[in-house]
Amino acid sequence: MTVKLLLDRKREGHALGSAEIRELVEGFTRGDVPDYQMSAFAMAVCCRGMTQRETSDLTNAMMRSGRCLDWNVPTADKHSTGGVGDKLSLIIQPLAAACGIVVPSLTGRGLGLTGGTADKMETIPGYSCSQTLERFHEISTSVGVSMSVQTDEICPADKKLYALRDVTGTVASIPLITASILSKKLAEGADTLVFDVKFGSGAFMKSVEEAKALADSLVGGSRAAGRKAAALVTDMNEPIGFAVGNANEVAEALTILSCGDERLQDVADLCVEFAARMVSLEKGIPLDDARAMCREKLADGSAKAKFVAMVEAHGGDLDRFKTRFNRPTFKFRVQTTTSGYVSSIDAEKVAKVAFALGAGRAKAGDAIDPLAGVTLAVKRGDRVPVGAPLATLETTREPELLERLAADILKAFSITPERPEPRRWIAAEID
Amino acid sequence: MTVKLLLDRKREGHALGSAEIRELVEGFTRGDVPDYQMSAFAMAVCCRGMTQRETSDLTNAMMRSGRCLDWNVPTADKHSTGGVGDKLSLIIQPLAAACGIVVPSLTGRGLGLTGGTADKMETIPGYSCSQTLERFHEISTSVGVSMSVQTDEICPADKKLYALRDVTGTVASIPLITASILSKKLAEGADTLVFDVKFGSGAFMKSVEEAKALADSLVGGSRAAGRKAAALVTDMNEPIGFAVGNANEVAEALTILSCGDERLQDVADLCVEFAARMVSLEKGIPLDDARAMCREKLADGSAKAKFVAMVEAHGGDLDRFKTRFNRPTFKFRVQTTTSGYVSSIDAEKVAKVAFALGAGRAKAGDAIDPLAGVTLAVKRGDRVPVGAPLATLETTREPELLERLAADILKAFSITPERPEPRRWIAAEID
Repeated sequence: MTVKLLLDRKREGHALGSAEIRELVEGFTRGDVPDYQMSAFAMAVCCRGMTQRETSDLTNAMMRSGRCLDWNVPTADKHSTGGVGDKLSLIIQPLAAACGIVVPSLTGRGLGLTGGTADKMETIPGYSCSQTLERFHEISTSVGVSMSVQTDEICPADKKLYALRDVTGTVASIPLITASILSKKLAEGADTLVFDVKFGSGAFMKSVEEAKALADSLVGGSRAAGRKAAALVTDMNEPIGFAVGNANEVAEALTILSCGDERLQDVADLCVEFAARMVSLEKGIPLDDARAMCREKLADGSAKAKFVAMVEAHGGDLDRFKTRFNRPTFKFRVQTTTSGYVSSIDAEKVAKVAFALGAGRAKAGDAIDPLAGVTLAVKRGDRVPVGAPLATLETTREPELLERLAADILKAFSITPERPEPRRWIAAEID
Repeated sequence: MTVKLLLDRKREGHALGSAEIRELVEGFTRGDVPDYQMSAFAMAVCCRGMTQRETSDLTNAMMRSGRCLDWNVPTADKHSTGGVGDKLSLIIQPLAAACGIVVPSLTGRGLGLTGGTADKMETIPGYSCSQTLERFHEISTSVGVSMSVQTDEICPADKKLYALRDVTGTVASIPLITASILSKKLAEGADTLVFDVKFGSGAFMKSVEEAKALADSLVGGSRAAGRKAAALVTDMNEPIGFAVGNANEVAEALTILSCGDERLQDVADLCVEFAARMVSLEKGIPLDDARAMCREKLADGSAKAKFVAMVEAHGGDLDRFKTRFNRPTFKFRVQTTTSGYVSSIDAEKVAKVAFALGAGRAKAGDAIDPLAGVTLAVKRGDRVPVGAPLATLETTREPELLERLAADILKAFSITPERPEPRRWIAAEID
């Protein structure tokens, strides 16, 4: 294979052969194909696209660059493209496990405005996401669910390619995003994959059309690899729930798992939709039956029990997590100066404030502040009088930060005289 | 400037700012912008194009990466995009000099199927194309013409970028080709630039449309940089003249400069067209007057005298060049097995045979065989009986090569019962 000729053909918009793509990825992983050829390849794919067959070939080649796990039990996982206040995995994964499915969930640490699932889980004192793949396998099968971070053994080609894409303006490509997400999920080995592809101000995909295209690509790629798959395209213009941060999101997830706040029913309902699809696909039962089972397992505490068992298996201590909130932090409550209905809360603006408070990381390896974040007091549709609290900002860093950010968070809220349309969470479904 | 954001914008098809392009090229030349970002940039330009303003900015930035020459006399140069049997510079440059213009001609060594002008000139014993820029300046102004190779002081950014493009499938881009050619020609400092943009089987541009687009870009870019410019788009489907190689091409150029073969009148006429445009533009006289002057300077031996003086100034010995042909070589004469008219001679096929005989180099630094090449016995339109010679192959390498290549060269000739249309050398003119 001559990489140069392969690049010529991709530049001209031709589809590459399966063997060519495999050899390219293998060469890149070994270091035989230099970064400057791989970045040119990534840019050509951004500009010229890839067929579904090529995308599958790229996915498979990246998956095979590392270890692939095997399960002899029914397995399913859910993957989110990332959002603001997105603690859904903390509820969905234990809920699906409570329905009798093994949920082996390899996750990432966050990069950008908000923390990742691993960052959130590790705000629980003692909880470690860094497990060997053997221990991850053991926890998943014995407890029914494990949330761990990918080790370097999983998809090293993806890690290397993503680092290159990140600095060469080649992130925005549906085939490349698909291969990056899917290669890791396929290596994880779950039979059923359900995707939460988000769109809107707080998501990577700004339009519903882009999100649908990615959802189609992820589901198509999963099926081409012999997995059962579905996707929901969900609205990420406003934060999910009230908590945006890390520890506060875990606390909110625990509230939902305990069915402890009616105002979080919309989030709980969305979790049921995802878990029900995992259960329906994996067990081969009607969606309505799966939905009823999930509602029951959430209501009767089974889902919470799975979460608690997973935390214990990972060394976490929920009692200490609860007292952790007694640590001194700087807080600032923001109030509305106008009355009316909360007609929108801009997810990206909230995320930027949470990031400035210390909830995210600008580059890999940066520390996050587990207690930093924004906790909203309201959600869309709420009626607020002048002086009503809108949100509380919290940080362990400088208190001077809070006043400046208070002005920023106010800009996230839109208060209007008319009651807004209720939020429609699910914009499209790929099944 | 963040290169990553610049790459994002180019990937999306936006035009970059002048300062951005300048800083990118400066950073790349210094080594601050890594190869993997520059190759992604090159691929994005291949896919998304550049405006004429962006192309000019890139050209200028590359030109300014090294030394730029200054002349206080009327100067002009001709550049060819490269062809098969393309010895035109050896005639045009001295001819323009004979008309009273200084022709400082920096050229390259060939890469690919055939040798470059420097390779051809250096088949003259003693002739050295490797001159300091000071000596190049001196020969150009004293003799009126010099053919030397670019030193590393000229456009180092182009050298570095071209090496990267060569291995990343990013050669085929009119803005990048324009910037590469023009940056060197602008640094050379000539007031007037005339371009020979070739199309057809023996040229880089296969279609006349592509060649016209490049010609437009080269002329537009030259004018944007304050130079006078014109371009002819010429047919490269068949070799130029009879000789394809290196020493045999120099010998043929000498024959044309001596008006020694009527069958080369078509090539001499084409040389006059180019030289006349250089003279007309640079002196500001009508093209017809310039054409008449060029015809006279070719006929009266003035052009040949300039060539001879240039050879002497570069240390070359034309007497020894003539006796050099007495060195032992392996020759093979190919004859036609059918009678009829020579209706076409495929330039690329001839070039591949010449390359296999040793006339070209596969990679920079390879040695070429100066005496290797193909000498055609016929040209398009000739009537040939069975057994008439079509071409002679010559090499100093293994004689076994010749028999295999004889079969290949035969495939270059098309012999038909009908007389073909005469060759139309000039397909378009940009003035």
